[in-house]
Amino acid sequence: MEGVDYLSDERQKAQFDVEAMKVAWAGSLQALQLSNRMANLVANDPAFEKFTRPMMGRKELLKNTLRKAAHGWKLIVDLRLTEEAKWLRLYIDEPAYTDLHWGMFIPAIEGQGTEEQKKKWLPLAQKMQIIGCYAQTELGHGSNVQGLETTATFDPQTDEFVIHSPTLTSSKWWPGGLGKVSTHAVVYARLIVGGEFHGVHGFIVQLRSLDDHSPLAGITVGDIGLKFGNGAYNTMDNGVLRFDHVRIPRNQMLMRVTQVTKEGKIMQSNVPRQLIYGTMVYVRQTIVADASKALSRAVCIATRYSAVRRQFGSRDGGPETQVIDYKTQQSRLFPLLASAYAFRFVGLKSITTTATADGIEECRKLCGGHGYLVSSGLPELFAVYIPACTYEGDNVVLLLQVARFLVKTVSELGYKKPVGTTAYMGRVASLMQNNCAVQTAEGWLNPGAIVEAFEARAARMAVRCGRQLAEFENPEEGFAELSADLVEAAVAHCQLIVVSKFIEKLQQDIPGKGVKQTLEMLCYVYALFLLHKHQGDFLATGYLTPKQASLANDQLRTLYSKVRPNAIALVDSFNYTDHYLGSILGRYDGNVYPKLYEAAWKDPLNDSDVVDGFHEYVQPILKQKLRTAKL
Amino acid sequence: MEGVDYLSDERQKAQFDVEAMKVAWAGSLQALQLSNRMANLVANDPAFEKFTRPMMGRKELLKNTLRKAAHGWKLIVDLRLTEEAKWLRLYIDEPAYTDLHWGMFIPAIEGQGTEEQKKKWLPLAQKMQIIGCYAQTELGHGSNVQGLETTATFDPQTDEFVIHSPTLTSSKWWPGGLGKVSTHAVVYARLIVGGEFHGVHGFIVQLRSLDDHSPLAGITVGDIGLKFGNGAYNTMDNGVLRFDHVRIPRNQMLMRVTQVTKEGKIMQSNVPRQLIYGTMVYVRQTIVADASKALSRAVCIATRYSAVRRQFGSRDGGPETQVIDYKTQQSRLFPLLASAYAFRFVGLKSITTTATADGIEECRKLCGGHGYLVSSGLPELFAVYIPACTYEGDNVVLLLQVARFLVKTVSELGYKKPVGTTAYMGRVASLMQNNCAVQTAEGWLNPGAIVEAFEARAARMAVRCGRQLAEFENPEEGFAELSADLVEAAVAHCQLIVVSKFIEKLQQDIPGKGVKQTLEMLCYVYALFLLHKHQGDFLATGYLTPKQASLANDQLRTLYSKVRPNAIALVDSFNYTDHYLGSILGRYDGNVYPKLYEAAWKDPLNDSDVVDGFHEYVQPILKQKLRTAKL
Repeated sequence: MEGVDYLSDERQKAQFDVEAMKVAWAGSLQALQLSNRMANLVANDPAFEKFTRPMMGRKELLKNTLRKAAHGWKLIVDLRLTEEAKWLRLYIDEPAYTDLHWGMFIPAIEGQGTEEQKKKWLPLAQKMQIIGCYAQTELGHGSNVQGLETTATFDPQTDEFVIHSPTLTSSKWWPGGLGKVSTHAVVYARLIVGGEFHGVHGFIVQLRSLDDHSPLAGITVGDIGLKFGNGAYNTMDNGVLRFDHVRIPRNQMLMRVTQVTKEGKIMQSNVPRQLIYGTMVYVRQTIVADASKALSRAVCIATRYSAVRRQFGSRDGGPETQVIDYKTQQSRLFPLLASAYAFRFVGLKSITTTATADGIEECRKLCGGHGYLVSSGLPELFAVYIPACTYEGDNVVLLLQVARFLVKTVSELGYKKPVGTTAYMGRVASLMQNNCAVQTAEGWLNPGAIVEAFEARAARMAVRCGRQLAEFENPEEGFAELSADLVEAAVAHCQLIVVSKFIEKLQQDIPGKGVKQTLEMLCYVYALFLLHKHQGDFLATGYLTPKQASLANDQLRTLYSKVRPNAIALVDSFNYTDHYLGSILGRYDGNVYPKLYEAAWKDPLNDSDVVDGFHEYVQPILKQKLRTAKL
Repeated sequence: MEGVDYLSDERQKAQFDVEAMKVAWAGSLQALQLSNRMANLVANDPAFEKFTRPMMGRKELLKNTLRKAAHGWKLIVDLRLTEEAKWLRLYIDEPAYTDLHWGMFIPAIEGQGTEEQKKKWLPLAQKMQIIGCYAQTELGHGSNVQGLETTATFDPQTDEFVIHSPTLTSSKWWPGGLGKVSTHAVVYARLIVGGEFHGVHGFIVQLRSLDDHSPLAGITVGDIGLKFGNGAYNTMDNGVLRFDHVRIPRNQMLMRVTQVTKEGKIMQSNVPRQLIYGTMVYVRQTIVADASKALSRAVCIATRYSAVRRQFGSRDGGPETQVIDYKTQQSRLFPLLASAYAFRFVGLKSITTTATADGIEECRKLCGGHGYLVSSGLPELFAVYIPACTYEGDNVVLLLQVARFLVKTVSELGYKKPVGTTAYMGRVASLMQNNCAVQTAEGWLNPGAIVEAFEARAARMAVRCGRQLAEFENPEEGFAELSADLVEAAVAHCQLIVVSKFIEKLQQDIPGKGVKQTLEMLCYVYALFLLHKHQGDFLATGYLTPKQASLANDQLRTLYSKVRPNAIALVDSFNYTDHYLGSILGRYDGNVYPKLYEAAWKDPLNDSDVVDGFHEYVQPILKQKLRTAKL
């Protein structure tokens, strides 16, 4: 870092070994070194500059993304990067068609293709001689795969499938990389053989010429238009796609699970049908990894700027108080810091994505007015992240699936021993009966007491839902009527999982002075923050008394004071470059105000003193000559 | 409305008189007619088209705003609009320098200027022969007015003030209209007379030439750069401003409260000092009005699209279920619908702005993936609205002021009868002692029971804070340490105010079939939703039993079923034109999908089939010729 470090005082307050914490965060020394190398490769290459990105018009923006993707691919080839490639793409930090090519198109073929199909298509894809995307969702159909309308009708005469979009709402809509780049797609469509529907399957369809890139006959394809935010996800060409009786050879249906023979016979292999959903599961896992990345970036920005920013509290003209010293700031910021660590070690899409999206926005608010500036990096971070709450399964839909599983577990308790994440339900009798025994604020610094509290809350809420459901004659009606409460029970269960996995993780040996202790502190912050936020659940189920809830809150305040001196070091441990953070407020050196001031002058509006439009639209007003002005 | 109304079935379900509800929402028949006239004037004038706004680069965007502002002012002059002018500007729906000129600059002079000053400056401003803004916040200083650094030093030799920016952090930063348009500003600065500091005051300073618009000598002024969102608040030229010993005549200090004589004597008139803050109070009131506008727009979009959108639940290939019929959707959407009505009748910045910002984002999520498209209108609505939580006083700062007032009230209960919004504290003994008496779900449909529950919760939380504070030797330290809890107590108090004012409003006669009953239903939804969301407070203070909290939740579910048939009619009652809503998902006629499809093709990326950048950056990849490509 060049120049003065305005945060060096803060860094000296740390009570743990930052380098060791970096290793713990990265997962291993090797992972740290590798990611460090890739991060710096990107940060030091001017080709990957991203400051001007939010100011670009759509065309310029996409062209710039294509340039970066090509440059990145060149590096990958030239440097013979293998597993590092995904880190390189991560640190380039710009959503692009390559994400879908590598993250969805190739895995779909790997998971759902036959050996023959893999042999044919994977080498082409892996060398990027073709570029593919994943065309599932439609204009009128999102998470419900069975509701898709696109058809793939088998024509035994020609041994082909006819891919067709029968309605407007069947238009493929949203797939990334589809709009302007992909040459191919895995298209999900209703398989029709002999006039009968045989489920939804994936088909490899070529969309554009490999020579001049023009759309093939029968294909209508384009970009779906602007999305939320400046820059942000607008670097991605999410697309719309319609088929007018497009014919593909029979062997382009992905046939690992279901086969259609030349004669039009449907065969099922004994590969589990869940493979169809394999790709989506893969993507969900990636998304979860992104939750801790996105939240930690936002927290890093907000924490550093909270140490730089001063407001009120000045006495006798001295400097004002650092914002990070206010309890109101700590009580909003530190739980998010703790959450970033929790999500690093445990991931659960349904609750981590929502908490992350909300957390990024909270970090923006914690930066005061300046967080609203694009140069703070927070608007783009938010806008890029929020689709994670929706795509590949709306969170509410996922939570209802969890709830269904929970009430089923409860109803079977008499004769079936629950295992896995619901194993605690096996102790339901004692969880229902025994209430919390904590009697002091210190008593809450006890992993056993915390896990039991979360178990009791989750179990009691699930049991209560089960009882309420039993009052309905039609169980499906009951499930629909009580769904909002079922979601709450599912959230309780998911929070238990994150809390207990975080605690489990800390049972391991974690090297480095103070590292394990600091993580334990964060784990308590995370758990007690959730307990306080959801104290209604804990009290309503009778597990806690108001006094005990209040003691937990007292302990939380004490913990905030303990986090405070470590805050900057804890965000330094993420080991993010200033390039990757992309935030003036979050600069490593804390030199915020001069750089904000400098950045302002780069806005195109400041190219001239007198603004474009003054003569036409402002001067006539000032001179009272609007009547004769040409507007 | 042209063509088919796809929501007509929904409209026929309404159980109340929509036209009468429109009057109730608008405030009076006259207000409805007036706003209707202005809304249609704007909607039918192609000069105010706003679809392309989010796609514009910054320069083009601002120029377009200047054009609209000029066109709007021409209409105001030509049609001799008086009080209608503010409605016209509202429906033009584009943040512009005129908002600050009319909303801050003129009110500042009106409130803080002497009669002589008003006589000189107001006619110029009212004819827009000068254009002004409000330059208070600085790069390093937000809400804390006393921390401002800009100086205004009196020079008795020349009878002038010297306005100066002594540090980088003293640069004025954020004022709207400052960046590229204003000719004048009311500048807040530290008054220095005879080497002594005499408080922060406002000064009228000319910034730009009235002839050629170039910045005057000693003035450095520009735009602060891009803000969150596409279009959104980027139509506003928020500015940065530095003074290098700029001299202004003594009579340009706003002297209604404090006067500086020719001789350098400081005089105080007996006008209350609060007038200094009068402008900010005025603005806050405007912001509160905007909360109900912004939230109701988002709710209107999400409600209509929830009726159009179908997902899952199809049996035997029939149509899928309307999303609005799911309880999970209702339990998130209907409380926001109720909140929009609550905020229309009652406003309280600190809690309505946060609830509105969160509510807009929730509405976006309730629209699924398509809410992420700019053409849904929701991203721009969110990005435009969120600064309301920060500007003119961070919400947490405001809530801490409320909390300070509450604990003071509590501490004085023995000898001082509380009045106004804290009058209920006078009954603190019974509020502490008597617990809730509700025994059935129907029992919650009782305004008395609801108000008392909110009173008891607020009183008990305030008293508990008071007790905890008393344990600290130094009250200020205690206040700092407990501030997060104090904020919670303040929120409880503010929610009580909104709930009880909403209930009060419904004591009046409200004409129209079913209108009053429907509003009562929304009032119950609002109150019981808050009660459920914050049940931790009600349980922790011991006012409610878990059973009673559960009964409230049961009643809430029942209420959602009653809201359901009225949902579309309730958002129709806002009487918003499709132009003002600016959302394809929220179209009055529900014709969503064809219009989304149509809009996609208008993205500049779709100007050509082969994307700009293909030959440079994609073809070399496909053809494996990256090594020789020029990137």
